[in-house]
Amino acid sequence: MNNKMIKYVIGLILKLEAGFMIIPLLLTFVYKEPFILKVSFLSTIVVLLMASFFLSKKSPENTKIFAKEGLVIVALSWIALSAFGALPFVISGKISSFIDAFFEVVSGFTTTGASILTNVEALDKSLLYWRSFTHLVGGMGVLVLALAILPKNNNQSLHIMKAEVPGPTVGKLVAKMSYNSRILYMIYLFITGTIVVFLLLGGMSLFDAVTHAFGTVGTGGFGIKNTSVAYYQSPYIEYVLGIGMLLCGMNFNLFYALLLKNFKQVYKNEELRFYLSVVGLSILFICINIYPSYDSVSHLFRDVFFTVSSVVTTTGFSTADFDKWPIFSKTILLLLMFMGGCAGSTAGGFKVSRVVVLFKSAINEFRRVGTPNRVFSIKMDGKIISKELFGSIGTYLILYITVFFVLILCIAPESPDFASAFSAVSATFNNIGPGLSVVGPTCNYSHFSDFNKIVLSFSMLLGRLEIFPILILFSPSLYQKNR
Amino acid sequence: MNNKMIKYVIGLILKLEAGFMIIPLLLTFVYKEPFILKVSFLSTIVVLLMASFFLSKKSPENTKIFAKEGLVIVALSWIALSAFGALPFVISGKISSFIDAFFEVVSGFTTTGASILTNVEALDKSLLYWRSFTHLVGGMGVLVLALAILPKNNNQSLHIMKAEVPGPTVGKLVAKMSYNSRILYMIYLFITGTIVVFLLLGGMSLFDAVTHAFGTVGTGGFGIKNTSVAYYQSPYIEYVLGIGMLLCGMNFNLFYALLLKNFKQVYKNEELRFYLSVVGLSILFICINIYPSYDSVSHLFRDVFFTVSSVVTTTGFSTADFDKWPIFSKTILLLLMFMGGCAGSTAGGFKVSRVVVLFKSAINEFRRVGTPNRVFSIKMDGKIISKELFGSIGTYLILYITVFFVLILCIAPESPDFASAFSAVSATFNNIGPGLSVVGPTCNYSHFSDFNKIVLSFSMLLGRLEIFPILILFSPSLYQKNR
Repeated sequence: MNNKMIKYVIGLILKLEAGFMIIPLLLTFVYKEPFILKVSFLSTIVVLLMASFFLSKKSPENTKIFAKEGLVIVALSWIALSAFGALPFVISGKISSFIDAFFEVVSGFTTTGASILTNVEALDKSLLYWRSFTHLVGGMGVLVLALAILPKNNNQSLHIMKAEVPGPTVGKLVAKMSYNSRILYMIYLFITGTIVVFLLLGGMSLFDAVTHAFGTVGTGGFGIKNTSVAYYQSPYIEYVLGIGMLLCGMNFNLFYALLLKNFKQVYKNEELRFYLSVVGLSILFICINIYPSYDSVSHLFRDVFFTVSSVVTTTGFSTADFDKWPIFSKTILLLLMFMGGCAGSTAGGFKVSRVVVLFKSAINEFRRVGTPNRVFSIKMDGKIISKELFGSIGTYLILYITVFFVLILCIAPESPDFASAFSAVSATFNNIGPGLSVVGPTCNYSHFSDFNKIVLSFSMLLGRLEIFPILILFSPSLYQKNR
Repeated sequence: MNNKMIKYVIGLILKLEAGFMIIPLLLTFVYKEPFILKVSFLSTIVVLLMASFFLSKKSPENTKIFAKEGLVIVALSWIALSAFGALPFVISGKISSFIDAFFEVVSGFTTTGASILTNVEALDKSLLYWRSFTHLVGGMGVLVLALAILPKNNNQSLHIMKAEVPGPTVGKLVAKMSYNSRILYMIYLFITGTIVVFLLLGGMSLFDAVTHAFGTVGTGGFGIKNTSVAYYQSPYIEYVLGIGMLLCGMNFNLFYALLLKNFKQVYKNEELRFYLSVVGLSILFICINIYPSYDSVSHLFRDVFFTVSSVVTTTGFSTADFDKWPIFSKTILLLLMFMGGCAGSTAGGFKVSRVVVLFKSAINEFRRVGTPNRVFSIKMDGKIISKELFGSIGTYLILYITVFFVLILCIAPESPDFASAFSAVSATFNNIGPGLSVVGPTCNYSHFSDFNKIVLSFSMLLGRLEIFPILILFSPSLYQKNR
């Protein structure tokens, strides 16, 4: 283990976080907020810079890192980011418990959008901005950002990128990793800007437009109103956000392909086709199912479109209380929550490409019944899936199920019933935020015990980082042979 | 497709069922039951013999069958067995609706033990016997029985055996299949007899002992009392049944190994070790969890031992209302329900060996993080698992999950909430019978609609036959090229 390099990178990440906090600090002056808020952000920045200086005062000679270091760096960076990111809430006293603040910030960075706040409108604008900004950073990944802006980085960084970007494979867009992550971030920021403009055109204030754009592109879902997006009562805004979420649930590599005018790659992308088909069919089925309770088709379609888009991308914005929908519709939503968005998107869940590969293998297995000598081969986008990749998707599924039930067992002793525990874990582990039942769109996470909040915070991290980075921290082999 | 051979075998199976009905017919005379019951069984026997004569009047020249025919034979045999097996209930008027009777008999043959009866004690003894006897036949499999008693059969029968015996692999005990199935049935009947003797020693009447032995060895769980096994108020009987269920959740090949004094094979069997460890740990954790609500340790242990044994083997006998236990214990029970018993046992669920292989692959994947060039290899009982077998277990998992959710979607429109639909499907698909929530140990399936009863009947068949045989009936390719 290259401990020096791990420390060094985490130090850099903390320096980056100090940089992120400059805008909310400025906002405390712009909005003439109380003195304590200025102190909160300023002192956090000082603490971050000190920690960063301590960790990365000298750059390591050996910069070589392998997969294991990549995972550890990502896991520790995310935990550190969240712990320090919680400080402004705690110091300002707006969220007095550190565990609550940690939960809230983990929820932000992992783009879950689960909140312990019962009255979000009581927060000052600088804190609201910071809370939503974590979605922007967490969506594409803070290490991907570091790779994009730091000059010195090489192809070894692939290990870090692999650990942070969701999905079974990381496609290389261009030969050099720094360009790779820069391209992704440029596209990402461009989409963010576009959404801001569209929201402004819909009559939103700049502050509201920016925070909602962060929540949308990161598929996070933190709102700044107690009634979430329903507050605006604007079909236009709902469509802008709905389409924005759907776009950010797609693989960002496809946007790059579009930039290169490689339309065929986008058109023929099987994951995208499956994703859009599932979204279309879900909207259709739910519309038919809940049709009787609506008096206008346009309102029905808007609510269903927005909800499906929000749920499949695991964003968690809400306009309708879908927990009151019939069970058939809720089951479809539950399946969408577990499927999640595409690989290489900002969405959570199990990822569409994994579902597609597993489905194909099931169909393949089924066909083999008649012809026993048929070769086992699954193609995706015209290429044969290697047995190694298929194996790793299969094991990811079993790990996913195992971790899921371990989390349920952890929070079970303090849960009123199985359905509550199941809902809370599925909403956090899939990075959705508001789920069904006790954590439905009109509920929040304030009633959970401190222990359960910690478990659910790890549930969010496990989901966002796709299990391995967090799990490896618990692996004894990590601590046996130092260096 | 060798249609003539399929017809022929199904004809034989129906003849066998006619034979099975002789004992209940005799019982109607022994217990001096009303005339209508004698008529019911007699007319069913006549109908079965006529159908059998029609289907297998001439033996086919070409007796060759492949995997596909094996699956179709098994699926159609089980559906036919259940449809005809329901007749005595319908003709006697004791279960007036054919769908209800079909559900009850499917539940018997699949060793689920889910009942639509609200007052089982109102049934006549001949019908109670027939109901429990279906567990005995379904536990080891009716086609395995046919292979055991029919003189003419060859190694092609492996296809049938593979389709009917649960678990990822069918171990060949001896070279000739007919001996294979004969040995299994001998062991099976020996265990049944032993349990009957032990129950008689505990003061049970012969009738009660026999029916309970059937429910135990088949891990079915049909009781003949409204309060199930709790009726007897006998710790001795609970231990006999508890141990009996645990034994029948083991791979029957191991009993054969014991007969051959091959103790090492049994001792080193990884599936058995895992199974017993899980049972032991579950008992321990649940005892700790529910300890406060018991005043005697012996009563606590007995209830927990019996419940864990009944749930993990997916039997469904009950002495305690575990639906009232704390959520931590219920979550453990839920996991046990999904895991089920060992491959080659009479138990349902996903099967221990599959869980072990998937766990090992997850651990293997986890270890590979540190050493990327490590070869992917999973061993079981000292032998390396082939990639094909691993692949088929992975796809079985995804098929299992897919079918599970399709079933939930089917019964969702008529279910009060998601938890009910989830419980009903998991209790039937895993062949447990009484599950949690609406189908808990004190509830039954009478309140489901006819459509849902049909769906749940297929859920039981899908679970018992491990999906493929039933699924292939819906495959269009089956009907395209005849012969």
